[in-house]
Amino acid sequence: MKRQQQSSQRSRSWLTTQRIEALTDGIFAIAMTLLVLNLHLPKISSDLAAKELSKQLFGLWPHFQGYATSFILLAVFWIVHHKQFRAIKRANEVSLWMNILALLFVALIPFSTSLSGEYGNQQIAVVFFECNLLAAGLIFYLQWRYATNNHRLVDPGLDPQSIALARKRNLFIPIVSLLAIGVSFISPEWSTTTYLIIPLLHKYI
Amino acid sequence: MKRQQQSSQRSRSWLTTQRIEALTDGIFAIAMTLLVLNLHLPKISSDLAAKELSKQLFGLWPHFQGYATSFILLAVFWIVHHKQFRAIKRANEVSLWMNILALLFVALIPFSTSLSGEYGNQQIAVVFFECNLLAAGLIFYLQWRYATNNHRLVDPGLDPQSIALARKRNLFIPIVSLLAIGVSFISPEWSTTTYLIIPLLHKYI
Amino acid sequence: MKRQQQSSQRSRSWLTTQRIEALTDGIFAIAMTLLVLNLHLPKISSDLAAKELSKQLFGLWPHFQGYATSFILLAVFWIVHHKQFRAIKRANEVSLWMNILALLFVALIPFSTSLSGEYGNQQIAVVFFECNLLAAGLIFYLQWRYATNNHRLVDPGLDPQSIALARKRNLFIPIVSLLAIGVSFISPEWSTTTYLIIPLLHKYI
Amino acid sequence: MKRQQQSSQRSRSWLTTQRIEALTDGIFAIAMTLLVLNLHLPKISSDLAAKELSKQLFGLWPHFQGYATSFILLAVFWIVHHKQFRAIKRANEVSLWMNILALLFVALIPFSTSLSGEYGNQQIAVVFFECNLLAAGLIFYLQWRYATNNHRLVDPGLDPQSIALARKRNLFIPIVSLLAIGVSFISPEWSTTTYLIIPLLHKYI
Repeated sequence: MKRQQQSSQRSRSWLTTQRIEALTDGIFAIAMTLLVLNLHLPKISSDLAAKELSKQLFGLWPHFQGYATSFILLAVFWIVHHKQFRAIKRANEVSLWMNILALLFVALIPFSTSLSGEYGNQQIAVVFFECNLLAAGLIFYLQWRYATNNHRLVDPGLDPQSIALARKRNLFIPIVSLLAIGVSFISPEWSTTTYLIIPLLHKYI
Repeated sequence: MKRQQQSSQRSRSWLTTQRIEALTDGIFAIAMTLLVLNLHLPKISSDLAAKELSKQLFGLWPHFQGYATSFILLAVFWIVHHKQFRAIKRANEVSLWMNILALLFVALIPFSTSLSGEYGNQQIAVVFFECNLLAAGLIFYLQWRYATNNHRLVDPGLDPQSIALARKRNLFIPIVSLLAIGVSFISPEWSTTTYLIIPLLHKYI
Repeated sequence: MKRQQQSSQRSRSWLTTQRIEALTDGIFAIAMTLLVLNLHLPKISSDLAAKELSKQLFGLWPHFQGYATSFILLAVFWIVHHKQFRAIKRANEVSLWMNILALLFVALIPFSTSLSGEYGNQQIAVVFFECNLLAAGLIFYLQWRYATNNHRLVDPGLDPQSIALARKRNLFIPIVSLLAIGVSFISPEWSTTTYLIIPLLHKYI
Repeated sequence: MKRQQQSSQRSRSWLTTQRIEALTDGIFAIAMTLLVLNLHLPKISSDLAAKELSKQLFGLWPHFQGYATSFILLAVFWIVHHKQFRAIKRANEVSLWMNILALLFVALIPFSTSLSGEYGNQQIAVVFFECNLLAAGLIFYLQWRYATNNHRLVDPGLDPQSIALARKRNLFIPIVSLLAIGVSFISPEWSTTTYLIIPLLHKYI
């Protein structure tokens, strides 16, 4: 049992992963739910509501798309974290701060989502969003490299193949983010749709 | 103990249900609490407050109703999830993504509640709310079907009768949502009251 | 025959308290933190900030008081729940719904706090706040009565004296809320200060 | 195993630390994520967006700094709490209320961050922020003193050296906050940068 392993291995210098997971799950849950605050209720006077409401709801469409995209991408990050911490058995100061730094960018995603939703045709807005994902993704990737380097924080028996596969998969979001930034120079409007590659990548690699 | 069972059964390819439950509980707790942000404080100048405040508080009545309805319906979904995951012992990629998709619609409920609270006499607003519930409910239902099909993710000893009963109960919200959408064609104002059938259904089925 | 099935399924029909505690802790944590959203940043143009900011921050004083009061009262409720669930070993449908109903009023406290903070001299605003606390407190009290009645959901060895003491203590908030509602007829402004009795009650009973 | 130890040691008068940790993790996660609500989306009409957006995003720079600073400081507090509760095995009424009081100031940090971000050149705003951190830090320090005094709430085998080291480290934020308040008399703008000393302190003490 994970918890038992932890406590038997626990010494003054190691931090437990259990509360790191609790904080991480909390921040992910809140960031995912706060995305909904980017959907602003249309304000229409009651005599015009019959005419205007459906039009304005359809006008919210890019925001619904942004909501779904960011929710799914946050879920992908959460799964990345979940899978990493099935293997990671302990934490030290370095890995703890990597995790916190990644969470700093995770918690920023609701803001950059609303930015790229509101100004989806402005390159700076979509690049801001994509750099945010790039930063979070890179730190998660580096966390995995750090933890698995010489099996530093993972089970000594973890096979190198799993480590390498996870390493590759942890690069999905950073690489796709770089691609999306590239696309933004051609068309800011279509830039964020680049993330639709992720499910394909996942299937074939 | 559930946790012990999990870890003894755990292999590389299965995901633990423990952190899925943690994320789910977090998102439910936040969605339920964010509902309160739909209750906007009346803004009255202090010399008029004595006269106007009580009137405006009563004017908030449909929003209080919406708050209570959505809080209770979210609780019903949470109980559905809670009961499913007493039986579900492991997760795979498919069930994980079903769960995340359901949460995407769960986290949307505060928005659609405020929409149907603000424009309760507009069919499109209440249908939006009811489709939101329909989607969340359907995915939870499919998750249960997927998990119990050939006892894929549940205890092999789970008796088929319990599975069938839970399957039926998981259809409550989707079916009532369809009914409510039907009622909205006759009267949008009364459409959401259709959900009051749920406690009755629960009693007799 | 149905009854036999039910009793053979009996363990199936009990809910675990662990996830109820998780949802409850989540809702309390969020309600306590959302209170801070009632503290609105003063909006002052930068050339007037030097003069006006300190004045406006002092003008926020009743809101800071409201923040602290509600934070502490929510903590008292949370401790009540914590202590109850040290003894409560299982849940059934009735106790689960009592818990959810209590949480519905717990999650409402940020709203009623902002209401009584903004309109502290209006009886209806402070009575709304106090009725909110009264409702949450009463349901927690009834939950304890229900759970301990014939040791329904608690450890069979739990001594009656502890049960009776906890029962008395669970009445603190409801009784003080009734007192506060009484005071509001004389002076709405001083009504919520009635809650300062709670630490005294706690000491001497 | 911590959980087992707790339950075997548990008597009526002791509170479990597990749910205190759950509430604390929840409040930290929410406070850290709510910081993002201080980043207000620039409101620009679509024809001016091309020109104005990048300028306004750079104008948000002090708010991004404030976001990062407070996120990191909250993480430091969380690590302080995490490390304390690796050693603290039980809670009593006094330590419970110290923890709640500390959380009251933790949950206030999003407000005081936005205050010092908006009015970073006003001494009262930055001192408010720094007093907030001072208060939270002091209470966490006192909690540790209280818990370790005669090994009141910690493992009897915990060595005095570790206790003393942790005591010193728990003083970092209070002392740096006092320094920052001092600096604010000379330059409010540079006052909050004082907190950059913390990583240095951490390295050399």
